Amino acid sequence: MTGRNSGATRRTPAENAQLALLLEVAGTPKPGNVDRRRDLEDLRFEHFLAGTVGAGKGLRRAEHGARVGIAFERAVAGMSRQSGGNTQFGCLLLLVPLVSAAARGDLTPDGLDRVVADTTVEDAVSFYRAFEHVDVAVRDPPAEMDDLDVRRGEAAAPTLRERGLTLSDVLALSTGDAAGGGMEEEARGETDGEPGAETEAGTRGIPDWNAVDWTTGFERPFAVAASIRDDTGPIGDRTARAFLEVLADRPDTLVATSHGPAVARDVSERAADVRGDLEAADALADALVEEGINPGTTADTVAAGLFVALERGLSV
Amino acid sequence: MTGRNSGATRRTPAENAQLALLLEVAGTPKPGNVDRRRDLEDLRFEHFLAGTVGAGKGLRRAEHGARVGIAFERAVAGMSRQSGGNTQFGCLLLLVPLVSAAARGDLTPDGLDRVVADTTVEDAVSFYRAFEHVDVAVRDPPAEMDDLDVRRGEAAAPTLRERGLTLSDVLALSTGDAAGGGMEEEARGETDGEPGAETEAGTRGIPDWNAVDWTTGFERPFAVAASIRDDTGPIGDRTARAFLEVLADRPDTLVATSHGPAVARDVSERAADVRGDLEAADALADALVEEGINPGTTADTVAAGLFVALERGLSV
Repeated sequence: MTGRNSGATRRTPAENAQLALLLEVAGTPKPGNVDRRRDLEDLRFEHFLAGTVGAGKGLRRAEHGARVGIAFERAVAGMSRQSGGNTQFGCLLLLVPLVSAAARGDLTPDGLDRVVADTTVEDAVSFYRAFEHVDVAVRDPPAEMDDLDVRRGEAAAPTLRERGLTLSDVLALSTGDAAGGGMEEEARGETDGEPGAETEAGTRGIPDWNAVDWTTGFERPFAVAASIRDDTGPIGDRTARAFLEVLADRPDTLVATSHGPAVARDVSERAADVRGDLEAADALADALVEEGINPGTTADTVAAGLFVALERGLSV
Repeated sequence: MTGRNSGATRRTPAENAQLALLLEVAGTPKPGNVDRRRDLEDLRFEHFLAGTVGAGKGLRRAEHGARVGIAFERAVAGMSRQSGGNTQFGCLLLLVPLVSAAARGDLTPDGLDRVVADTTVEDAVSFYRAFEHVDVAVRDPPAEMDDLDVRRGEAAAPTLRERGLTLSDVLALSTGDAAGGGMEEEARGETDGEPGAETEAGTRGIPDWNAVDWTTGFERPFAVAASIRDDTGPIGDRTARAFLEVLADRPDTLVATSHGPAVARDVSERAADVRGDLEAADALADALVEEGINPGTTADTVAAGLFVALERGLSV
């Protein structure tokens, strides 16, 4: 039975962002990630539930017009109030500007470009401050960017202000050699016989896809939203299929950071082999959990896609 | 890894209420209910996720001092914004006064008695209005209370005002013969050989346990909170064990409404047989889903217990 007044009011953008976080973690199978049926050793389903609840206040600030950096830092602070560590830092980095655009009635790639272009140096300072709330897996920046290492947190503020770097600038600087650490491993020979690495456009590493989304009008999340809406069946299955598509196309940034680009590319090939086949994906999910490989950046993209799908009428 | 500042700020009562709703539905196995591993035919996990998000605004109103009836009606309106129908009406009927008491720094049985005693006729009118947002399974009231049938919604307002009935009065009137409908089935012979029915104190039917909690200082939710905190292991397992304990002790009100008190008592006996044994409970869960038996009122009590446990320091 349907709530008699269920159509009377719509969910707000902040509510849809929280629901997107919950639908993302509930989607199963999502190889290597926590899902409705799987926990990791120290990162469990309930940590994502608590992270979602905690992020609400920051997401509502974005909806009410707060600066993107401030809303993001508040959302991360709330998200971090659980014992699992970093559950949704990357999801929130995508969801906060999406909520801001939706609240402006401007949830389009051009609208996101406008939100990104409007970010200031203070947004960048807040972004760095967010890293003080929770341990986020990051790799060493290039030597010339050492004083902008996000692990410096608020200590990077003087440099940001001196160089006049906005949050948009910071993320543009982050898109590139995202697998520097991984490439050192690569140099140590882990990629013997690995296909494609030589010919990959730009860096031989794996990009920071969240930063790429920031600099490309969130093109991929909008595409994910369309595929989820065009798909049929339970939302948890649609989420899993979208996850496999993204993972197959984009070697995961977090996997590259933790295990090197060769492993990240191998995981994408394994995802490509099972895309569209949730039964085969279920076996891959068990395997990646066993191997300790966690494609967390792919989940960020899917959560952002779920948000756009909900804003555009995906029915729950 | 733990969020570095995870202890810096505490979740608010409204946030703990939302987290309690999520932890409750995620607990597994919860025989007959939607849980992390099971959906019912038309009532799925994602409906509970959306219901939880939608209830947030009403729960925050309670936290900020709104009247219990008004906050409850808003929470139900938001909860109903999903296509599964009634997911958490009963949970919210318990959580809203608990949030009010916690926000007053008075989360004790005496504190709850004070919250209940403070309810007004207008709270009762709001309570009736809440039934207009979503279809709730209720049984026919005694003939002399026909004009107070909750299904009348706001149309009952003149009677409530004329009789000066507060929300506390309304719930006190609801504790009793909660299985009237069920007893008719009983009269049709469904209880042949049923033990205990004759000797049960008061009505031969099953009480409305949520109304009972309202009139007894929420004694049982406080007891459930203590058992969850004293228990060990993953929160999902503790939730499942608490669910079995409550179901074994209290023949479920919703089951009595839908299938009669004989079935409700039988389900409690089956729960008693597997209490403490989650593997056996898993089989019972599959069986009850198959039989279409949904002990939803038991889940309300457990959600309320999870809230109290979180307020008292249960770590997630």
